[in-house]
Amino acid sequence: MSMIIPLDPETIFNAVNAALDEDIGRGDLTSRSVVRFGQKGRGAFMAKQDLTLAGLEVADAAFTAFDPYIQIESAAADGEEIGEGKVFARVTGDAQVLLAAERVALNFLQRLSGIATLTRKYVAAVAGTQTKIVDTRKTTPGLRLLEKYAVTAGGGHNHRLGLDDGVLIKDNHLALGGGVGETVRRAREVVGHLHKIEVEVATLEQVKEALAAKADILLLDNMTPELVRQAVEIVHAHEPNERRTLTEASGGITLTNVREYAEAGVDMISIGALTHSAPAVDISFKIKPA
Amino acid sequence: MSMIIPLDPETIFNAVNAALDEDIGRGDLTSRSVVRFGQKGRGAFMAKQDLTLAGLEVADAAFTAFDPYIQIESAAADGEEIGEGKVFARVTGDAQVLLAAERVALNFLQRLSGIATLTRKYVAAVAGTQTKIVDTRKTTPGLRLLEKYAVTAGGGHNHRLGLDDGVLIKDNHLALGGGVGETVRRAREVVGHLHKIEVEVATLEQVKEALAAKADILLLDNMTPELVRQAVEIVHAHEPNERRTLTEASGGITLTNVREYAEAGVDMISIGALTHSAPAVDISFKIKPA
Amino acid sequence: MSMIIPLDPETIFNAVNAALDEDIGRGDLTSRSVVRFGQKGRGAFMAKQDLTLAGLEVADAAFTAFDPYIQIESAAADGEEIGEGKVFARVTGDAQVLLAAERVALNFLQRLSGIATLTRKYVAAVAGTQTKIVDTRKTTPGLRLLEKYAVTAGGGHNHRLGLDDGVLIKDNHLALGGGVGETVRRAREVVGHLHKIEVEVATLEQVKEALAAKADILLLDNMTPELVRQAVEIVHAHEPNERRTLTEASGGITLTNVREYAEAGVDMISIGALTHSAPAVDISFKIKPA
Amino acid sequence: MSMIIPLDPETIFNAVNAALDEDIGRGDLTSRSVVRFGQKGRGAFMAKQDLTLAGLEVADAAFTAFDPYIQIESAAADGEEIGEGKVFARVTGDAQVLLAAERVALNFLQRLSGIATLTRKYVAAVAGTQTKIVDTRKTTPGLRLLEKYAVTAGGGHNHRLGLDDGVLIKDNHLALGGGVGETVRRAREVVGHLHKIEVEVATLEQVKEALAAKADILLLDNMTPELVRQAVEIVHAHEPNERRTLTEASGGITLTNVREYAEAGVDMISIGALTHSAPAVDISFKIKPA
Amino acid sequence: MSMIIPLDPETIFNAVNAALDEDIGRGDLTSRSVVRFGQKGRGAFMAKQDLTLAGLEVADAAFTAFDPYIQIESAAADGEEIGEGKVFARVTGDAQVLLAAERVALNFLQRLSGIATLTRKYVAAVAGTQTKIVDTRKTTPGLRLLEKYAVTAGGGHNHRLGLDDGVLIKDNHLALGGGVGETVRRAREVVGHLHKIEVEVATLEQVKEALAAKADILLLDNMTPELVRQAVEIVHAHEPNERRTLTEASGGITLTNVREYAEAGVDMISIGALTHSAPAVDISFKIKPA
Amino acid sequence: MSMIIPLDPETIFNAVNAALDEDIGRGDLTSRSVVRFGQKGRGAFMAKQDLTLAGLEVADAAFTAFDPYIQIESAAADGEEIGEGKVFARVTGDAQVLLAAERVALNFLQRLSGIATLTRKYVAAVAGTQTKIVDTRKTTPGLRLLEKYAVTAGGGHNHRLGLDDGVLIKDNHLALGGGVGETVRRAREVVGHLHKIEVEVATLEQVKEALAAKADILLLDNMTPELVRQAVEIVHAHEPNERRTLTEASGGITLTNVREYAEAGVDMISIGALTHSAPAVDISFKIKPA
Repeated sequence: MSMIIPLDPETIFNAVNAALDEDIGRGDLTSRSVVRFGQKGRGAFMAKQDLTLAGLEVADAAFTAFDPYIQIESAAADGEEIGEGKVFARVTGDAQVLLAAERVALNFLQRLSGIATLTRKYVAAVAGTQTKIVDTRKTTPGLRLLEKYAVTAGGGHNHRLGLDDGVLIKDNHLALGGGVGETVRRAREVVGHLHKIEVEVATLEQVKEALAAKADILLLDNMTPELVRQAVEIVHAHEPNERRTLTEASGGITLTNVREYAEAGVDMISIGALTHSAPAVDISFKIKPA
Repeated sequence: MSMIIPLDPETIFNAVNAALDEDIGRGDLTSRSVVRFGQKGRGAFMAKQDLTLAGLEVADAAFTAFDPYIQIESAAADGEEIGEGKVFARVTGDAQVLLAAERVALNFLQRLSGIATLTRKYVAAVAGTQTKIVDTRKTTPGLRLLEKYAVTAGGGHNHRLGLDDGVLIKDNHLALGGGVGETVRRAREVVGHLHKIEVEVATLEQVKEALAAKADILLLDNMTPELVRQAVEIVHAHEPNERRTLTEASGGITLTNVREYAEAGVDMISIGALTHSAPAVDISFKIKPA
Repeated sequence: MSMIIPLDPETIFNAVNAALDEDIGRGDLTSRSVVRFGQKGRGAFMAKQDLTLAGLEVADAAFTAFDPYIQIESAAADGEEIGEGKVFARVTGDAQVLLAAERVALNFLQRLSGIATLTRKYVAAVAGTQTKIVDTRKTTPGLRLLEKYAVTAGGGHNHRLGLDDGVLIKDNHLALGGGVGETVRRAREVVGHLHKIEVEVATLEQVKEALAAKADILLLDNMTPELVRQAVEIVHAHEPNERRTLTEASGGITLTNVREYAEAGVDMISIGALTHSAPAVDISFKIKPA
Repeated sequence: MSMIIPLDPETIFNAVNAALDEDIGRGDLTSRSVVRFGQKGRGAFMAKQDLTLAGLEVADAAFTAFDPYIQIESAAADGEEIGEGKVFARVTGDAQVLLAAERVALNFLQRLSGIATLTRKYVAAVAGTQTKIVDTRKTTPGLRLLEKYAVTAGGGHNHRLGLDDGVLIKDNHLALGGGVGETVRRAREVVGHLHKIEVEVATLEQVKEALAAKADILLLDNMTPELVRQAVEIVHAHEPNERRTLTEASGGITLTNVREYAEAGVDMISIGALTHSAPAVDISFKIKPA
Repeated sequence: MSMIIPLDPETIFNAVNAALDEDIGRGDLTSRSVVRFGQKGRGAFMAKQDLTLAGLEVADAAFTAFDPYIQIESAAADGEEIGEGKVFARVTGDAQVLLAAERVALNFLQRLSGIATLTRKYVAAVAGTQTKIVDTRKTTPGLRLLEKYAVTAGGGHNHRLGLDDGVLIKDNHLALGGGVGETVRRAREVVGHLHKIEVEVATLEQVKEALAAKADILLLDNMTPELVRQAVEIVHAHEPNERRTLTEASGGITLTNVREYAEAGVDMISIGALTHSAPAVDISFKIKPA
Repeated sequence: MSMIIPLDPETIFNAVNAALDEDIGRGDLTSRSVVRFGQKGRGAFMAKQDLTLAGLEVADAAFTAFDPYIQIESAAADGEEIGEGKVFARVTGDAQVLLAAERVALNFLQRLSGIATLTRKYVAAVAGTQTKIVDTRKTTPGLRLLEKYAVTAGGGHNHRLGLDDGVLIKDNHLALGGGVGETVRRAREVVGHLHKIEVEVATLEQVKEALAAKADILLLDNMTPELVRQAVEIVHAHEPNERRTLTEASGGITLTNVREYAEAGVDMISIGALTHSAPAVDISFKIKPA
């Protein structure tokens, strides 16, 4: 089961404040000119399409960063599927604050929910298999933790959070010299004892080499589903009593063919598009006098 | 003509450094374990699809932030159209540096070129009309200046950079009380003398009200192309001798119908999807020993 | 009417904290050595001359930044005229806190009230005319927003907040090549559609050139009042039905001659001395045991 | 003799960068619209009145912060007296850079030279006596080190840089309880062995009390020149063989009466107006094509 | 008597937050995986050896930085001697918070109490003499104010907080040219009037030279106790009526010989080991369900 | 073999700059008063005891942070053993810079070399066995990466860099409920696939439980050498063909008994004292005119 680990408040605070600074600069010229000082408003977030929600707490923080007295009522939580037309949250308080924070709140909510919505589709496509959908490091610069959170809200799992969060030997490492086996062994000597070692393999020959070198995880990159199936069989044959070595597939996998890969028996499928190409979902925020 | 204003070096530096910190954390575990200290490499950026380039200087900065001795040769510039299969830049230097900066460079380059590529399609769709394609504030939190730069690399123009960069009275402002005319006049009294005033209108009645209040720009929101045409005619009739008031269309405009809107005579069409839903373009970075 | 737009709490917070860090360093050696720990005091701010108040909220923040339990009672508000000898605010709480924050509070209050007081004199001098008194970018580095706020507290209006907040083509721009008309037209093509264009003119010839190029505002620099009157007449003659183009006078204008300029019919007069040469007003802060 | 201690490069860098950020925000709209990319210019700083120079290095830094290739030629140095009409520095390089940094450079230069110019007048007024002119903590928030530097450029000396930089027991400390003698003794017990103790005295009785308590410096506040003379005599009589205790006068001292105070024999006279009320001096910066 | 001056809350806040960031990075992997969300715990700090407590407030801040609802009960205060086996504080609240902050709290508490414990031993060793134990600038980079606080908690006194906090002319200064007397006199001319001047002397000849130049404090470096005694006698003979000049001994002084130095009559003994070599004391923190 | 991974330049830069700011504050009062402006000096670092060097690059950075023209010649490298009396580095350049940076350079060098020196002793004590000496998270707040680097310079290995760098289930986790086996299994489900799981065990019963739950590493805490030997035997018996599970001993291990633990067959021994109680080594820095 995927678990949504609550976002660290500091992560939210920093992201929201940077975004508000970026958007508001020296002040919201329009609102302070046309909205009566002290006027109260009430805004409603409505789904304009079916979506999986992610980032509600971030959106809330955009309002409360200005004014702790803003009141927020939610009718849904992150990870929940929301149908088109549903009002899932209301925000009440100073109208100038609602207007100044609106765009930042929506920018986060639409992007993060876009990621969760796309992830959910991949998760649904492999339902019933043992395969987990995992993300990549192909995230928006500056928003990695938020986007990886959105992946878990959609039912996916997280791969490495950064280059310091795990060892993954890729084609570019191998291209610089040294075969799969030798490179894995070199890493084992240097890396701390708490880290596993994953290595990218492109052929069945490399699969065997990696197993011989006791790699912990094999990244089967750009293989056909059929080749993946053969690779998985080799791994299982190598560990007849107890399965320790994990397999991950990546490269050219879409909603259309993801189930084929899952049925080939891999433990994980990683999808860059979850974070680099998820379209924003459509959410409106309409304000009325309160 | 659209003009690409060079990005401020500080903007690039800050974005790249934040992204490197985020990705690398306490160090690139893999590269320092498996790549020989001091080994040199040579990496090539290749377009894996047709695209309009944006962000090359940002990608370069990801490498040089680590090591000023990294050498970069470019065979293309931002704003240029690149065909699938073309190697448009090469990076030579310390292999550990190439590996550590690779993902950050690609994350910027694929996203920004994605925006430029999508913008270019909209610009092409209205070619031959007087209409400019402009962006919105629906940008990725933290990357607004970079994304708005990418829009200009694709041939688009920039709308407001932030809430302090122009007055735009929208439906939520009007919903809080006061008609179009009254609200425009209130803004005029308070706003500094160097700022114009734009107001969102949804009906022809509001178009007339805005003209009477001497609004500088009319945002025709969620109108059909036919209604837009009528609105533009009213504006022209109001200024028989000299055109001062500008018109902008927005809402529900896609690549399919954007030309209809342009032919209706508006000065600008703003498209949120340029920044909130442009898919990343596919670019590879392959390293060899140098 | 001038409107005092409330200062952003973050602006106040940052300015006050930087000033406290600067003044206190590693700690207030004197107070912690000679004042009993836990002793309470009560301080009174008294005007030692007639003045227009500005910065009271900033002064308050200097105390509460240390200790949220400090109590402040105000008998006046920013923008109000205070007579010599009046106690306009009292601060009660921990005596060490009162002593540590005293100088920072006074430094802000005396400077900002100095600006408001001088501005008020200029505003009074043009009373009954249509002319607004506006400030410039000749502000103290680091304190621009606070000083521009003080100008509005004195009844003045704000010109650009920075180089990104409006287009103003000055003599140095023109000296680099290109006449008034050509330069205005070049700016119009590049600048975003929400910005007006102001241009400095020194002769009646340039006034006509600027009008022909449809400049939005004319800065009449270093002209005599008589020349200003002629320039204004040319502008009015150019727009017989509807006045759109604004005029601003600057250069060599003092309390002695400001009314002459106002009576020449300009919309605005900008005065650098409001912020670069306003003497601090005299305010005392005396503490007693509480 | 006063000594000008060179400003720390980090202090200059931080002040200049904060000021440039404040002024330029997201970019200089005007210059990039009207000045040709790559055009070169040459600007000249000219004194429009007689002045004592201070801050030339700070002004230079405003240009080089943008562009290390900017060339600066100086015909004068800080601390030097400059006659009206003299061009004392020229700056050559990219014209957009000259225009973007111009206002920040001038804002520093006019303010700091204003302080040096006023200080020089006070120093001249006491010429031939043993008395030093010293500044106070009544400085512009955020600019203390720069302003105290300008005081030394004008021939003055610096008092405490902050509350942690010396012990000065003032009226507000005494008002909280404890006589002059007791308070000085309490301070002596607690304060580190490297710090002297200065105490404010208002009567001859307090002078004697302070001497008995072995205060190191006496601040004679708001006394007439005649009373100051008597206080100094009491101090001298107390130390017939060797003078250790210093005296300082402050309060109500202007250019008109400062010499009277100096002739009364005090070691130092402190003047708040040096920093809180020095008018900016008039300096022009004119650019031509280069 | 030594006085413990309360630590500035901002100093504590900054140190604790930097340490938490350093230790927790992107999150406490273990606790969030194995501890039930929302579970409460109760932790006890117990002395595993006799010690003098310092840093309790810092340790508390490590918990409350995460969660203001954490409850802390203390059975002791900084500066108090704690016997082995005593539970001196309990912390109750969210178990994940207790686990995440535990190590940072202990790291501060064990180090600062280690310093206080060692200082207390030196203070005890000179009990009954007039000599104060003082620290040096040989502190852990980044923790100076905290470590100097711990010295006072152990009954010691603070020497300079930094190079800007007092004048101390050392052997390296003298080696660059100029005798003791000349150098002291040069300093006197330049340094502000609130600062005393301390000079390092290594011979009785230099003692006399320093006295002739009116140095305020003599640092007797690397002398034997006997030589120190002679130096002190020379100082006393120089000031028969009134003692103004202070003496400090340093260099090669340990718990074994410190009393000999004290009995030689110096005012202060400075010990670098208080901060650079104090071993951490042993403190445990055990958590149970609450 | 232990490998010394070069310190990240940004880590050095940040640590050194923070330390210089802390020590120098508003300026080095002494040096600028007594050392002639522009005078050159030459300083020598000499070992005053036998030591293992660590931090030379950090010490160098303290000088070059001020002045890139400072010249440094090294006669040794980190990790090298230096005999008492050896001059291992010389620094030549501006004398004021040498004096201002001296203390910071020494504070880093003496602490880090102290850690390396102590680590080397532990490593020597287990020479010839298969056991690695590893550090803990008991480091100085703010200096973790530097101190862990010093451990590797002494021949030790690094354990977790922070709570996000590995899963280690300790007694406090277990005390909150759940046995060893259940807790390890819970962690496995949630933690990312690249992380191993280490668990603390105190009895042989728990050793078996941990093996059954497939823990990757067993932390044998506070066991006697004999009990450790039995635990290791149980682990080996559980994996007759292939050793996968690692063992680590900790708690009450000193230079006296560390070899006994190593001979009991554990893979690693972790020692908190390496970082929390290593005394600074004695190093002098003497300057002469150059």
